[in-house]
Amino acid sequence: MPLPTAFHDIAARVNNWGRWGPDDELGTLNLITDEVVRAAAACVRTGLRIPLALPLRRQMVQTGAIPGRIDPLHVMVQVNQELFGPGTVACNDDAVTMGLQAGTHWDALAHVSRSGLLYNGRPAGTVTAHDGAAFAGIGTVRHLVSRGVLLDVARAHGTDRLEGGHAVTPEDLEAAEELAGTRVRAGDIVLVRTGQIRLCLDGDRQGYAHPSPGLSIRTPEWFHARDVAAVAGDTLTFEIFPPEIPGLWLPVHALHLVEMGMPQGQNWDLEKLSTACGETGRYAFLLSATPEPFTGGTGAPVAPVAVL
Amino acid sequence: MPLPTAFHDIAARVNNWGRWGPDDELGTLNLITDEVVRAAAACVRTGLRIPLALPLRRQMVQTGAIPGRIDPLHVMVQVNQELFGPGTVACNDDAVTMGLQAGTHWDALAHVSRSGLLYNGRPAGTVTAHDGAAFAGIGTVRHLVSRGVLLDVARAHGTDRLEGGHAVTPEDLEAAEELAGTRVRAGDIVLVRTGQIRLCLDGDRQGYAHPSPGLSIRTPEWFHARDVAAVAGDTLTFEIFPPEIPGLWLPVHALHLVEMGMPQGQNWDLEKLSTACGETGRYAFLLSATPEPFTGGTGAPVAPVAVL
Amino acid sequence: MPLPTAFHDIAARVNNWGRWGPDDELGTLNLITDEVVRAAAACVRTGLRIPLALPLRRQMVQTGAIPGRIDPLHVMVQVNQELFGPGTVACNDDAVTMGLQAGTHWDALAHVSRSGLLYNGRPAGTVTAHDGAAFAGIGTVRHLVSRGVLLDVARAHGTDRLEGGHAVTPEDLEAAEELAGTRVRAGDIVLVRTGQIRLCLDGDRQGYAHPSPGLSIRTPEWFHARDVAAVAGDTLTFEIFPPEIPGLWLPVHALHLVEMGMPQGQNWDLEKLSTACGETGRYAFLLSATPEPFTGGTGAPVAPVAVL
Amino acid sequence: MPLPTAFHDIAARVNNWGRWGPDDELGTLNLITDEVVRAAAACVRTGLRIPLALPLRRQMVQTGAIPGRIDPLHVMVQVNQELFGPGTVACNDDAVTMGLQAGTHWDALAHVSRSGLLYNGRPAGTVTAHDGAAFAGIGTVRHLVSRGVLLDVARAHGTDRLEGGHAVTPEDLEAAEELAGTRVRAGDIVLVRTGQIRLCLDGDRQGYAHPSPGLSIRTPEWFHARDVAAVAGDTLTFEIFPPEIPGLWLPVHALHLVEMGMPQGQNWDLEKLSTACGETGRYAFLLSATPEPFTGGTGAPVAPVAVL
Repeated sequence: MPLPTAFHDIAARVNNWGRWGPDDELGTLNLITDEVVRAAAACVRTGLRIPLALPLRRQMVQTGAIPGRIDPLHVMVQVNQELFGPGTVACNDDAVTMGLQAGTHWDALAHVSRSGLLYNGRPAGTVTAHDGAAFAGIGTVRHLVSRGVLLDVARAHGTDRLEGGHAVTPEDLEAAEELAGTRVRAGDIVLVRTGQIRLCLDGDRQGYAHPSPGLSIRTPEWFHARDVAAVAGDTLTFEIFPPEIPGLWLPVHALHLVEMGMPQGQNWDLEKLSTACGETGRYAFLLSATPEPFTGGTGAPVAPVAVL
Repeated sequence: MPLPTAFHDIAARVNNWGRWGPDDELGTLNLITDEVVRAAAACVRTGLRIPLALPLRRQMVQTGAIPGRIDPLHVMVQVNQELFGPGTVACNDDAVTMGLQAGTHWDALAHVSRSGLLYNGRPAGTVTAHDGAAFAGIGTVRHLVSRGVLLDVARAHGTDRLEGGHAVTPEDLEAAEELAGTRVRAGDIVLVRTGQIRLCLDGDRQGYAHPSPGLSIRTPEWFHARDVAAVAGDTLTFEIFPPEIPGLWLPVHALHLVEMGMPQGQNWDLEKLSTACGETGRYAFLLSATPEPFTGGTGAPVAPVAVL
Repeated sequence: MPLPTAFHDIAARVNNWGRWGPDDELGTLNLITDEVVRAAAACVRTGLRIPLALPLRRQMVQTGAIPGRIDPLHVMVQVNQELFGPGTVACNDDAVTMGLQAGTHWDALAHVSRSGLLYNGRPAGTVTAHDGAAFAGIGTVRHLVSRGVLLDVARAHGTDRLEGGHAVTPEDLEAAEELAGTRVRAGDIVLVRTGQIRLCLDGDRQGYAHPSPGLSIRTPEWFHARDVAAVAGDTLTFEIFPPEIPGLWLPVHALHLVEMGMPQGQNWDLEKLSTACGETGRYAFLLSATPEPFTGGTGAPVAPVAVL
Repeated sequence: MPLPTAFHDIAARVNNWGRWGPDDELGTLNLITDEVVRAAAACVRTGLRIPLALPLRRQMVQTGAIPGRIDPLHVMVQVNQELFGPGTVACNDDAVTMGLQAGTHWDALAHVSRSGLLYNGRPAGTVTAHDGAAFAGIGTVRHLVSRGVLLDVARAHGTDRLEGGHAVTPEDLEAAEELAGTRVRAGDIVLVRTGQIRLCLDGDRQGYAHPSPGLSIRTPEWFHARDVAAVAGDTLTFEIFPPEIPGLWLPVHALHLVEMGMPQGQNWDLEKLSTACGETGRYAFLLSATPEPFTGGTGAPVAPVAVL
């Protein structure tokens, strides 16, 4: 099924192609200026650091439903190996095989295409089995540090976890923004909390996968209006799944990554951050979330840390 | 050959076992207090961000000499796959196999043992092929953000790159500290620049590997005296290689990781940082360098960013 | 729980340590003499070839219950890549990550140890994370071709598939031998059919895994009496699972691999072979089943073919 | 550069498209009839078995020049793990990551395409990053047993190893056939020995890779005339490399795999077989060489065994 008019109408309104030049591969990350980063550093009050990554290990997030997206298979290649002879210092070394989108990760702009096109109108064919993403791969993002703002939609709704069928709307975001006590502005990284990851943390991977609350197709326009740099969430699918419009799969992915050129993050553990923000009443912080720089990667693991 | 007296004498002087309790797995990272982090954030002046990680790709660092420590094999598992039918949004997904210590990385405390013991006197046997490091693995380090100080030893010596046989001494560190114009203090992450990584960046992996300049066996006492939280460098071997004392292999690894409980980083690209610090005359910055949280990992890739 | 007397009594009766010299790593495979192979070739009547391997692909056998034993993750590293310029011959290349025991495979003698010992009394410590099996690994088996005999226990019981709780006894083997119309003799490879793999072929991986019919602890003595070279079966666990004697786990593994030095095979698809043997009334054939020669492997995939 | 007339002329003469029907995926393997296999079994005289596979291990064949085609990275995921509690039977388990064409292997027909086409005129686009080869992948070859004939070109030339620049011609094949004392016939698997693999066995991987002796562009017509089922050799590149006609890369690959639909094998160790055939004066044998059945694989490891 080709993409419907409903999609194309929004796409036209949020499209950023050419905004940072025809060769730009960074999209909305261009909005993170030095000034934005200085202001982000000024958000640090207590020095408390809160990690937002899930542990990387077997049987963490993935159910096997997405082919090839395997949880980390961590293996030892040396165990207390006395490399230089008996009695010498002994070494441990390890290796891993994993899907780059298996755990807490960023999607690169090249993660999806629509109608044969990537961000900035580049052909989808620039992604190949041989080289991965030759355009707008995750390796082009060499640093990702900015102000982070937690939009705690679950808390704004007075719940620990939104229902599976809950589409997070612009109205939800604004209610959470009011709770946060700070206005989302250009260059911010917005973290949208639904509480869904509690299922994953409790070991219910199937329940975590779907049905899942998540962003409504109406939210990209809100992010676009605010000139957000990136958005991350605490679900597997990021957007509501199954989708709001039957047959229109992953529209938010396409609007963010292809039209706006805005990276998005999944499987972020926002539970401890929610607690800390709730206790202090402050929902803005320095967020350091640079993806691992895989050349040609269409996504990458990240170990984000909020500094409050 | 068992470890010589020279080693044990230093070991006795720098040993931190029990300092943070018998069950501690974090070692000198305990020195990074909230106060230290607040001060680190206050170092941010311009907002400029400088990435310190090498790209993750095939044929980057490793020569094959260290068995199992392979450069990333990045593969696509989906290329523009229209998962939900023709005309729908198309997805790209990838996977990787790599040595955890292959590129820019942190060594976990469990990376080496000596005389059958890890940090805090725990048995080396707590590292197994099945589970990796059950004690002091990299997964216990959930955040690593602090003040970073660049000790630019190469520049202090008036060169782009130290010779292969150059052992970096405490005197070298102090000369670089003077150049830096700031005193290294408790909780700092020290970045020691030799310039050796220029060989790697130029494609000479063999030359990069060895002979390599690096830390002298005399430096752990200096780091211990300053209560440094962690040290990272721009070489493959971290310490001088081949070693200063024939037959005494990897003594700095053992002193840092086992005796002091201090993480160390390798293959960090400090070239752009050196340029930026040289231009501004400021060598201290906010450093965000949280390792990927592999459960049981004895090391992990990291994408460090200095915020100046 | 240490191994009980019941185990040690049988172990003493079937033990082959030293039988082929103190340095032998091949065990009962020594029983496959040139003469045995000539006789095996003489079994070929029709020339019909029947493959006994399951396909190697994602989501085939493994449920994730055995840590690290992952189904093949097959990935393309080149897709129609014109390596030498536009218009030239284009190449496809692939790579795989998989557990060596994930699909149709042989266990090497080094696959299990008991009481700290491997076959021929060698220390279990000869298996290391660094080198794998330095003794009796699968790489020492450079060819495995002999007479194969199908003992179709399911058919002898008049069923397509034995119940999950069915322990295959020596009496079962003899009934199947009578059905086969040939006496099992020295150097034979015996294939024991339970029909359990039908569950796997039908997509029921959990049901296939357990409860599973399989060899009784009483069968190793029968194989020993006949001087069988190797035994393979159509289940995941090979022996009955859960075990016959509560708390005595994998006794047949230990008796075969450690005491007798006899390789064993799992996840063999014997369905088509059963049909062919039933139609012709002939249950003996040339069996070619050389494992992939992984140096230090404690098991390996195999693509066995019966030539009738 | 598009393929030259010289290529297309030969292609027209050896093309087998449609010969076994429009949906055929097996090509010349169809020539291995039951009758051929019966005759192959009748070749067994002594029962001696000779393995033709290189060991599968790190640092065996690959130099890193072919991206993604990595030598096996064999890792232990369990080492003497007492899975069911202290004192119970202990298990060793392993996993591997490797290029399917890294060691001794078969190329599937889908390994190469030319002008956008695979064997039988199917579109090259049937190979995808997601599924691998949907047509003519290695998984369609469920058994590969036939008469093998060693054409010992090196010996026929009175040398242990042909020079790097030696193109093996039809005349070379006929001289070797005369030495073999048997006429190559329909359904045979021909093994062409150059001796080049001695370099690999001696540890000279670079020298082994190229310059390499190998099949001339003139040989496909010879194999076609004899209706050979498959051809394997003892070099990395199979055909002479660098190529005979400058700019015409891998023409033999394209003629065999695409036009004829004939599988080809590389990195086969024919040294011991050469010795045995030389001693007995018999160069024909039963050859069992079934590839590992990777679904969608464009090649696969194989552990071939000649039974003399």
